[in-house]
Amino acid sequence: MDEFRELMGNKLNEECGCFGIYNVKDAASLSYFGLHALQHRGQEACGIAASDNKNITCYKGKGLISEVFTNKIIEELPGKHAVGHVRYSTAQQNQIENVQPIMVRAHQGSFALVNNGQIVNAEEIKVELENQGSIFQGTSDSEIFLHLIQREEGTMVYKIMNACAKLEGAFAVIIMTKDCMYAVRDKNGLRPLSIAKLEDGYCVSSESCAYDIVNAKFVRDVEPGEVIRIASDGIQSFKYTEKTQKKMCSMEYIYFARPDSVIEGVNVHNARKLSGKLLARKDKVKADIVIGVPDSSLSAAIGYAEESRLPYEIGLIKNRYVGRTFIQPTQKQRERGVRMKLSAISAIVKGKRIVMIDDSIVRGTTMKRIVQLLKDAGAKAVHVRIASPEFKSPCFYGVDTSTYDELISSRLNVKELKEYIGADSLKFLTIDEVKEANGPDLCVACFSGKYPTNLFSLGNIIKK
Amino acid sequence: MDEFRELMGNKLNEECGCFGIYNVKDAASLSYFGLHALQHRGQEACGIAASDNKNITCYKGKGLISEVFTNKIIEELPGKHAVGHVRYSTAQQNQIENVQPIMVRAHQGSFALVNNGQIVNAEEIKVELENQGSIFQGTSDSEIFLHLIQREEGTMVYKIMNACAKLEGAFAVIIMTKDCMYAVRDKNGLRPLSIAKLEDGYCVSSESCAYDIVNAKFVRDVEPGEVIRIASDGIQSFKYTEKTQKKMCSMEYIYFARPDSVIEGVNVHNARKLSGKLLARKDKVKADIVIGVPDSSLSAAIGYAEESRLPYEIGLIKNRYVGRTFIQPTQKQRERGVRMKLSAISAIVKGKRIVMIDDSIVRGTTMKRIVQLLKDAGAKAVHVRIASPEFKSPCFYGVDTSTYDELISSRLNVKELKEYIGADSLKFLTIDEVKEANGPDLCVACFSGKYPTNLFSLGNIIKK
Amino acid sequence: MDEFRELMGNKLNEECGCFGIYNVKDAASLSYFGLHALQHRGQEACGIAASDNKNITCYKGKGLISEVFTNKIIEELPGKHAVGHVRYSTAQQNQIENVQPIMVRAHQGSFALVNNGQIVNAEEIKVELENQGSIFQGTSDSEIFLHLIQREEGTMVYKIMNACAKLEGAFAVIIMTKDCMYAVRDKNGLRPLSIAKLEDGYCVSSESCAYDIVNAKFVRDVEPGEVIRIASDGIQSFKYTEKTQKKMCSMEYIYFARPDSVIEGVNVHNARKLSGKLLARKDKVKADIVIGVPDSSLSAAIGYAEESRLPYEIGLIKNRYVGRTFIQPTQKQRERGVRMKLSAISAIVKGKRIVMIDDSIVRGTTMKRIVQLLKDAGAKAVHVRIASPEFKSPCFYGVDTSTYDELISSRLNVKELKEYIGADSLKFLTIDEVKEANGPDLCVACFSGKYPTNLFSLGNIIKK
Amino acid sequence: MDEFRELMGNKLNEECGCFGIYNVKDAASLSYFGLHALQHRGQEACGIAASDNKNITCYKGKGLISEVFTNKIIEELPGKHAVGHVRYSTAQQNQIENVQPIMVRAHQGSFALVNNGQIVNAEEIKVELENQGSIFQGTSDSEIFLHLIQREEGTMVYKIMNACAKLEGAFAVIIMTKDCMYAVRDKNGLRPLSIAKLEDGYCVSSESCAYDIVNAKFVRDVEPGEVIRIASDGIQSFKYTEKTQKKMCSMEYIYFARPDSVIEGVNVHNARKLSGKLLARKDKVKADIVIGVPDSSLSAAIGYAEESRLPYEIGLIKNRYVGRTFIQPTQKQRERGVRMKLSAISAIVKGKRIVMIDDSIVRGTTMKRIVQLLKDAGAKAVHVRIASPEFKSPCFYGVDTSTYDELISSRLNVKELKEYIGADSLKFLTIDEVKEANGPDLCVACFSGKYPTNLFSLGNIIKK
Repeated sequence: MDEFRELMGNKLNEECGCFGIYNVKDAASLSYFGLHALQHRGQEACGIAASDNKNITCYKGKGLISEVFTNKIIEELPGKHAVGHVRYSTAQQNQIENVQPIMVRAHQGSFALVNNGQIVNAEEIKVELENQGSIFQGTSDSEIFLHLIQREEGTMVYKIMNACAKLEGAFAVIIMTKDCMYAVRDKNGLRPLSIAKLEDGYCVSSESCAYDIVNAKFVRDVEPGEVIRIASDGIQSFKYTEKTQKKMCSMEYIYFARPDSVIEGVNVHNARKLSGKLLARKDKVKADIVIGVPDSSLSAAIGYAEESRLPYEIGLIKNRYVGRTFIQPTQKQRERGVRMKLSAISAIVKGKRIVMIDDSIVRGTTMKRIVQLLKDAGAKAVHVRIASPEFKSPCFYGVDTSTYDELISSRLNVKELKEYIGADSLKFLTIDEVKEANGPDLCVACFSGKYPTNLFSLGNIIKK
Repeated sequence: MDEFRELMGNKLNEECGCFGIYNVKDAASLSYFGLHALQHRGQEACGIAASDNKNITCYKGKGLISEVFTNKIIEELPGKHAVGHVRYSTAQQNQIENVQPIMVRAHQGSFALVNNGQIVNAEEIKVELENQGSIFQGTSDSEIFLHLIQREEGTMVYKIMNACAKLEGAFAVIIMTKDCMYAVRDKNGLRPLSIAKLEDGYCVSSESCAYDIVNAKFVRDVEPGEVIRIASDGIQSFKYTEKTQKKMCSMEYIYFARPDSVIEGVNVHNARKLSGKLLARKDKVKADIVIGVPDSSLSAAIGYAEESRLPYEIGLIKNRYVGRTFIQPTQKQRERGVRMKLSAISAIVKGKRIVMIDDSIVRGTTMKRIVQLLKDAGAKAVHVRIASPEFKSPCFYGVDTSTYDELISSRLNVKELKEYIGADSLKFLTIDEVKEANGPDLCVACFSGKYPTNLFSLGNIIKK
Repeated sequence: MDEFRELMGNKLNEECGCFGIYNVKDAASLSYFGLHALQHRGQEACGIAASDNKNITCYKGKGLISEVFTNKIIEELPGKHAVGHVRYSTAQQNQIENVQPIMVRAHQGSFALVNNGQIVNAEEIKVELENQGSIFQGTSDSEIFLHLIQREEGTMVYKIMNACAKLEGAFAVIIMTKDCMYAVRDKNGLRPLSIAKLEDGYCVSSESCAYDIVNAKFVRDVEPGEVIRIASDGIQSFKYTEKTQKKMCSMEYIYFARPDSVIEGVNVHNARKLSGKLLARKDKVKADIVIGVPDSSLSAAIGYAEESRLPYEIGLIKNRYVGRTFIQPTQKQRERGVRMKLSAISAIVKGKRIVMIDDSIVRGTTMKRIVQLLKDAGAKAVHVRIASPEFKSPCFYGVDTSTYDELISSRLNVKELKEYIGADSLKFLTIDEVKEANGPDLCVACFSGKYPTNLFSLGNIIKK
Repeated sequence: MDEFRELMGNKLNEECGCFGIYNVKDAASLSYFGLHALQHRGQEACGIAASDNKNITCYKGKGLISEVFTNKIIEELPGKHAVGHVRYSTAQQNQIENVQPIMVRAHQGSFALVNNGQIVNAEEIKVELENQGSIFQGTSDSEIFLHLIQREEGTMVYKIMNACAKLEGAFAVIIMTKDCMYAVRDKNGLRPLSIAKLEDGYCVSSESCAYDIVNAKFVRDVEPGEVIRIASDGIQSFKYTEKTQKKMCSMEYIYFARPDSVIEGVNVHNARKLSGKLLARKDKVKADIVIGVPDSSLSAAIGYAEESRLPYEIGLIKNRYVGRTFIQPTQKQRERGVRMKLSAISAIVKGKRIVMIDDSIVRGTTMKRIVQLLKDAGAKAVHVRIASPEFKSPCFYGVDTSTYDELISSRLNVKELKEYIGADSLKFLTIDEVKEANGPDLCVACFSGKYPTNLFSLGNIIKK
């Protein structure tokens, strides 16, 4: 089942995409289009909250943005400001209470919050808050923000800053009160968040690819440890801590982000293409063509082809109609499950020595089947090149890889892995090469095992 | 609205994909997987009928194959034989009665039928049948088959042959009785249909890309004017007419078919790539990069790049979550509608002279907006190359282009069209080049205006 | 399962209610309200077809009229004439093709048809029609009408009359062409149908209880063997046969019809009350109170109480939220299944000798459980009085009782049945008393076994 | 719209029905059947939480119990204890967060809570709690319980008692922890709650009519101010206050409760029948028949008929298929809206002088239309007798009558009201007679305007 899910879905799942828009006509409608551009960051649930300066109205549901929202629903979300969210969720967290935006409605004032990330001291804070009488509705750690803010006194900025100061881990948060918007990043800058300008208003987004559709122009990334306040009288910046560093998640470049996004000044497609070139420089493979596993590895494959001067080809076709629900296949069908998602073009691969680029190897089962697929289609040799290092350690900052056991590179070395997947050769990038391609200030904990934060009670998982 | 539909959906729509499987375990389940591989041929409705040698059970509904069918439904379709269908339908034909398979249940025996194509003398035959008391449930001309067959006497093969002899136009039909299967193509071979072998059974499909997922091996195309009978005692071939010719729809190669399919011996990806090379040989454009409009033009773009020795690049990203339903945008949003579907990678196209390959131009509005999109992202020049000739005449054989007015090339010449779309230069393939790339025996009526059949009452549309 | 279905649903099921309205504003909307008043005649599916003098638009679905239709759907059914239908259906007939109105759309003209009844020579005619090339979509015998009419030539009235002349059995039909309406009853008048007048228009309905809600005034019953034509130039009457008699279904009075309906001049509530009085005259039971099984037996219970001068009481409460779907109970829960539908008021029945009136006994299982329910609640004695004769023979005219085996009175005599249900005494009405209460011209075949028509191939069931 | 809602729905709406079951097999399944018996207390939403002594699983949704729950869902609610709820909700409270059971999941332990009633100092407590950092999800005042309990320390019984002591108003609460159940009533006993015994377990219910279906035997009512703790070691009783009195809501007897329920020792049907007798003793009307408005007034009508020796008749039929959704009628249709729900039997009422019994008059519009309906059907005179006093003051304890303006008796005296509804005479019961019929210890605030509790900020409504 898990394997089939993986084949059908994505190999890695991130928790979210956040979008906010301030002082525009049709804020909810523009949020719809913005979230549509962020849909690749989460497909299981979504929501939008809009404010008309007096009341905040919120709607959320399970499914794609185009499935959850209709014209009628958008019309029932009036106002000039809005925040929205697309969400991936693991099975155990698949309750409606976890879908964002999450809200506080209280006599002191209402606000809505969206977040991308994972708090590593969530459990510790939650116990403390429950001891003081707090009641949590869902299991999402974003709810902790609400309680920490609600228990503070003073201005909203002050409350948000005090709340952030208590939290360790990764977060990129947008908070909307009835008339203001706040954009916040954790002190390591682990998750992306940037701001843009449009007409009289502002836009906040997890990825810059959402700006074009709403006609907004990129301004800058929110800084690690920064709280940006957007109000009718303009923008203000606050720092809730001085102990900041830049540790952008390297998987954003490698796998998650859309190729047209620019993160911390680096275009994702170009970063991937450079990764492909670095792979090509490693050795001179005797091969006839270079292919990529669609879609996330095509940029790297083009880079490899350019550098190696081997012809770039389309050897694998991705079925565009792979949805979230499929009939349960019998065991036999399961074995050819990957073929529902990918097809080899026999006319291309037959008799060829192939360099096949993929962005990463997580569990290894899909890669094993892709190699088999190509060989069944007549490939003479399949040289696998991975545009990232060996994925050895779980992520605790919002990427869904919870245990060492799931990570095949924590169990097999490169040679063993090559045998397991049936490749004729197998090479990875080094951590240094990843930094060369994507930028120096990266979190590479999943490759190096060195985490930029204390891990609190999550540390137990590591020791196991 | 129509324009928005076009932007969100496909520029051209074909009517269907047909799939049949004979003498296998889990026939309905395998049909599900086969139809999933044919999903690109029709996304609005689908159905499967299965036979256990005694009874035929049928289920159909609106939506994708993965939306309409569940494990429970598949289990309720028992038997070793099955036929299935995926369907595109125009708004006016969007009634459940038109969804296929369509069936006859009668004391003489039941049978189910799926069809891809369009009968050009449908109206004439329908009036004649109604005068004799026939009652039609839907508006699909495939229903005419049922009535013609039911009114014949004799063996099923004989009835099918007599029915086919009365019909002009395009059809690729699979008929399943409780214990036999029949595969039929019109005498011009306008629509594709082929057969494959698996274990003790057979498989019939509109495109060969469906065979891999069910572990079937391609045998051969059904011939124009041929009726193939598949029964427990093997395969037999019949010809219902000697006046046959090969006039395979050229748009199958250019736009509809999946790159991994082989039609009449020609692999679609390779045909497209060769089309791109032929485009490159036309002139020597001073350009920096070659890009394609995803997905159907990427093969041609790679061919162009190879031939011209210009770098192949990813300049446009296609949003994978463009679904069938979207909120109705305001006028202003509509103008940037294409941006929901396509995004330019600014980091790639900025300051560049671009050769952009597309497979065809139908209405021209989308192309105009794509050129604008690239220029807004900073492209210095956009040279548009179309991997097919000017689309000037409507198709009456199953491709949804009903009037001359919709076809921009029937109104504007190449120079005018270049101005309209805002390109720096514009070139098309010639009809001869199309035949060079895809094969000599093609229907090119949409480019030449010369139709391979009499058009009967449809001719009125042409005169208008 | 069947027993649970029976407990949850109705003990007997009729096939339909028909409604038509001619020359009014909002014809579809008024049909909605008319069908709502006929909902007790069928709850599984419904439909409305409306004509604006040019086109007929039709919508149908599974469920109650209030579930299937919305304002939006009603608005999409424009026109001044409409016909509608509510349908009960057995499991095997539960396909959407059987839901009415059923339609012919042909170049000669379109028409919609609704029917209540059952054709006894359906199978014979169907084989003949199929031999001539007719294709049937569903299994409902109403479809035969369409084919017979479509195969005739001449005026519509003439075609309808010729079609009717070929059919044996029970039918009450409304046919709507784009600008006329036809109301037809079989020659024995087995199923009710009447006409009413409102403003400039007319109304046709299975039961008169539908007239009040649309402000129509009852005019008269359609006669057995009559075809009434309603057109813009007024009403005309035709007889398609002279061999007519009045054989109205006695179960209409006993169980099906609403108490406020008047059928063939007799009010249903009064007929039931008189049945109760006739029961009371049979013997002088020593009892403390009279109760009825809600809802259909309350009229008879009041009649019994009046005649016997025993106090009328509410001893059983019916749960108003018994729907069509329920969770499958475990065996133990099943045994108290009837308690979901009925509750005894212990405070009333405890220690009392009770006369309990029910309208009929079909399978006997429900009655057995009701008697038990009353005894568990403390009743000292339960004297069961049934306001109809022993139900011994299946109905072939549209009431869902297909086999002798299901009818407990075909297996047990009164004394045995009394023992089986655990009653202290049990009495039925005689056939003569039924005629005294409800009228002399009744079909009493289910009590007498004497059928008013030839039964054709259905006769086989009887011999078994 | 409101009027149409009233016509289609109920004239008065209560907030809820509560059900709990402890130490039985299939606790969720039995709760399903128990809630089905309480469905008349709320039809808009429902939920069940079940505990297997370790975990509490909860499922809730909008709609009837038979619509929300399926076998599959019930199976996913394992355990031997369960609490459930059926809910009526006003439009503004119609959010899923308000649907019960509501839950706390915290490291100290989880619990689920269901409640019927209304807290009159909710607003005051909520502000206080929010000032201390509490976050409320919904607008239901039942959520206050959760927060008060969660903020206490000590044993669960102690926490519940302390929470209750802070609350004024009406509540009947069942709380389930993973292994215990608590049944609680407010100190005035305004809402009903009782306990029953079955095998090794216990049952708690708003009304005794739910016990029969689960085979439980009534034990006793929970006392005002009492907390009953049900655990594996048996039952314990606690009092959280000594200042208790019995003030059972009189509308429970008059309108809400099912006739077979026994509340505070009085059977509802008998109480209503006695009310009818008291009405008959008021004067000697010259009339031919006595009828009741179905369903809630039939008991009183029988009592009136018995006392007056006038014949009891069925003059009004209630349509059993009046659902929650209907198409919006045009103005003209609206005027006959009540006719969708009620029909007069013309054959009975024509030419008759009628005594018509109804349980209460709230807004008066329905009564006006019923009188008109009877007169249109030919009634010579309609003498209206109401089995309760004039409804003059809003209820603040859970019955949905929020303003004086809606209550016609707060604006018109009996004579004026008689004119308004078009009756030939009109009489009400006195408050003393209500107590004679239903018991001495009643809350009659809606008739007398004397509320048994302080009304806090709700008092403002009264002054208006």
